[in-house]
Amino acid sequence: MTGLIYPLLLCGGSGTRLWPLSRKSFPKQFARITGDDSLFQQAAKRLSGADFAAPIVVTGNDFRFIVTEQLAACELAPSAIVIEPEGRNTAPAVLAAALGLAQHDPLALMLVAPSDHVIPDQEAFRAAVQAAAPRAQAGYLVTFGIMPTRAETGYGYLELAEGAQSTATTPQALKRFVEKPDAARAAEMVASGTYLWNAGIFLFTAQALIEAFATHAPDILAPVRASVTQARRDLGFTRLDPAHWADVPDISIDYAIMEKASHLAVMPYSAGWSDLGGWEAVWQESGPDASGNVISDHATALDCTGTLLRSETDRVELVGIGLEDIVAIATGDAVLVAHKSKAQDVKDAVAALKARGALQATQFPTDHRPWGWFESLAMGTRFQVKRIHVHPGAALSLQSHHHRSEHWIVVEGTAKVTIDGQVQLVTENQSVYVPLGAVHRMENPGKVPMVLIEVQTGSYLGEDDIIRYEDIYARGQGAKG
Amino acid sequence: MTGLIYPLLLCGGSGTRLWPLSRKSFPKQFARITGDDSLFQQAAKRLSGADFAAPIVVTGNDFRFIVTEQLAACELAPSAIVIEPEGRNTAPAVLAAALGLAQHDPLALMLVAPSDHVIPDQEAFRAAVQAAAPRAQAGYLVTFGIMPTRAETGYGYLELAEGAQSTATTPQALKRFVEKPDAARAAEMVASGTYLWNAGIFLFTAQALIEAFATHAPDILAPVRASVTQARRDLGFTRLDPAHWADVPDISIDYAIMEKASHLAVMPYSAGWSDLGGWEAVWQESGPDASGNVISDHATALDCTGTLLRSETDRVELVGIGLEDIVAIATGDAVLVAHKSKAQDVKDAVAALKARGALQATQFPTDHRPWGWFESLAMGTRFQVKRIHVHPGAALSLQSHHHRSEHWIVVEGTAKVTIDGQVQLVTENQSVYVPLGAVHRMENPGKVPMVLIEVQTGSYLGEDDIIRYEDIYARGQGAKG
Repeated sequence: MTGLIYPLLLCGGSGTRLWPLSRKSFPKQFARITGDDSLFQQAAKRLSGADFAAPIVVTGNDFRFIVTEQLAACELAPSAIVIEPEGRNTAPAVLAAALGLAQHDPLALMLVAPSDHVIPDQEAFRAAVQAAAPRAQAGYLVTFGIMPTRAETGYGYLELAEGAQSTATTPQALKRFVEKPDAARAAEMVASGTYLWNAGIFLFTAQALIEAFATHAPDILAPVRASVTQARRDLGFTRLDPAHWADVPDISIDYAIMEKASHLAVMPYSAGWSDLGGWEAVWQESGPDASGNVISDHATALDCTGTLLRSETDRVELVGIGLEDIVAIATGDAVLVAHKSKAQDVKDAVAALKARGALQATQFPTDHRPWGWFESLAMGTRFQVKRIHVHPGAALSLQSHHHRSEHWIVVEGTAKVTIDGQVQLVTENQSVYVPLGAVHRMENPGKVPMVLIEVQTGSYLGEDDIIRYEDIYARGQGAKG
Repeated sequence: MTGLIYPLLLCGGSGTRLWPLSRKSFPKQFARITGDDSLFQQAAKRLSGADFAAPIVVTGNDFRFIVTEQLAACELAPSAIVIEPEGRNTAPAVLAAALGLAQHDPLALMLVAPSDHVIPDQEAFRAAVQAAAPRAQAGYLVTFGIMPTRAETGYGYLELAEGAQSTATTPQALKRFVEKPDAARAAEMVASGTYLWNAGIFLFTAQALIEAFATHAPDILAPVRASVTQARRDLGFTRLDPAHWADVPDISIDYAIMEKASHLAVMPYSAGWSDLGGWEAVWQESGPDASGNVISDHATALDCTGTLLRSETDRVELVGIGLEDIVAIATGDAVLVAHKSKAQDVKDAVAALKARGALQATQFPTDHRPWGWFESLAMGTRFQVKRIHVHPGAALSLQSHHHRSEHWIVVEGTAKVTIDGQVQLVTENQSVYVPLGAVHRMENPGKVPMVLIEVQTGSYLGEDDIIRYEDIYARGQGAKG
């Protein structure tokens, strides 16, 4: 029996390979791609229960409230939410979490897990973690090696030591980490039976990891340690110190540590895994029907084979006719149609959209905030209409605007509204007017969500026309809403 | 020199072959498919100018304000807009127009033209009409025959009489009308050089047509004549009498007259024509680039060939990657992705959508009314948000609702608002509240469009919760807005 294992969920990524569902403002790990939970929620649930401590989450500043909201939605509380001032790849993120954990329990086991992977068999995975734990407690860095199912060139590989078994159910000796290969080399490795995929999943004690950094990457250890020592607590978030973080190199844990360390072991895993690296993988992981199709709600397929049709909103009906090996993904503001074999090139399309200034390249129309979310419903040259959803007990900042007036009509729940010091309750089917320049605040004092329609009019309607007087979420002047 | 020719624009169709751009509520002829004008507007402009009288339009009740709005937008005034109580195919529509015209000028020439075709060379077409006019004035029924470019099985054919020339620039003798053939027969006919396509374009005098009905279809002539005689003038529209119209058979002019009549002639035409019978035709007529692609604004193609990508709104970015011979059409609420060779099957998809109650099968989110248009921006269980656009000088009916209150916020222009007898002007950035049950009216007294945001709250939000007290457009109780 080992002690509780701390899951470390890495949530910093902002990949575009699943655009338009994954965007910089709301990346893949937070999207519902397979099932009703997001990939992050699935990962958090997979690593919860009797064997596990509450998770440590490392993420970026923009995602902190998405993390808290998604954890709350599956009734999980984190041990810590660590905010990286800037993304620096995996080595600094994992080290920062280890240093934080070591402050109270240096021998604690940490399971490092990307939060955007699919691992369908939760029980098998937990069993593998338990099987790997004794070796990790003995001071080894245990990496999980996935039994390869194709000659993939997009992953690194793990070469087993002589005599090690790729099908073993206990940790095996590891010869070395191998960089992403070309196609011929990948085919050789898969055929040999002595290579596994490197999935970026690791188990070790905080102390073993810190010692490995001290030996192999002292230049990383020093600034990360300083960032952790001088971290600031902020509303339950742990903000790493940005000045020291600026000196931290951008490097993966594979390069920084695993390719150099001794005391390595590999835990073979063959019960199913995908990093959902593109739409073809989503199609595969979604369980195609007898015709090879995966068809979502609000999508209709006629005479299609090998095709993925996804409508991401009940406001859009998607119809596919006579398609073969096509993926079509429709959101409210963007549509991707790609041949399955070319869907990886979506990153080039996103770059093209970005170059011509299309917001869809990086943004969603729905914007998540500490107090809830809002969505732009209509935009004119001098007006904008928003639907604003405020969580029970939440409050927007006390603020004013230089360039716009606002009309608020409550359509669900009850709002507590402050305008120039006057407080009033505004309930369903009531409205209130916020003149230009008035100092105002909107709160939801109730037990159910409050929804209001905001109609803004004015000469400039940007989110940065805001002066903040008080904010329970400690956001600054001009920062978003 | 002939007298002025009356264009008769047939606008009754409601085809689904160009779904999602063409729907029952706003069919193909009114959509902007090629260029900035709708097909109807293109047809009206093509048949305007020195040779032509103002057009006669035959359409359905639901489309009458779309017709007036689209004609006004291209600064054309109609001779008459004739409303069919129900669609009865082309024979009754053409006859009704001829009877109306004969009341003041029986020898007037009528050019019958579907309003949903593409005829790129306006000058060539006008020249053909002029070349055909003397024969029509001599009492012939002249049909336009299109030089076939493929062995099409979707059209009827015209067989030239012996000695007639399919390339002539004057009307030729016609042997007979031929029904839609099978593929083998179509290939034979096209190879023979003595068959032309029947495009449904005709030139004749009103009197010649009426005489042909008297001879060949007296059972149609009697009820249509009664419908015209007892037609009712309504705000500039001519409403055919519905009681007599109920007795009118549903039949095409080809079956009713052309396949039986003597005094037929055919005017060959080879300068380009399409009936845009499906998305493949739209692709063809839109001028594919060197890679065979047609790419709209807000659409991006990577590594595509032979592909049509159309985003119909600036709110949706459409991306195509690695596609071959695909059409992808994105509107705000529906997306079609089809192999070009299967795009004709879209009617089956529309039927499937209709069967499961999807509004997108037949409706657009934007609804056209005599006073302007509105669009639903958001819908909850107890609220709805609309953007309402009112033309200068226009007024909604004086009305009340049993189940909803309304908040109106003016965001452009000025509204004149009446609530329970109180009249007020409401201008940009002002709002007004209409309580449940209040008798109210919204008008635009100004010179520029008035736009307001309406937030409805209540237990039932259907368009049919309306009691009308006065309506300058003479609509009844419970009829739409």
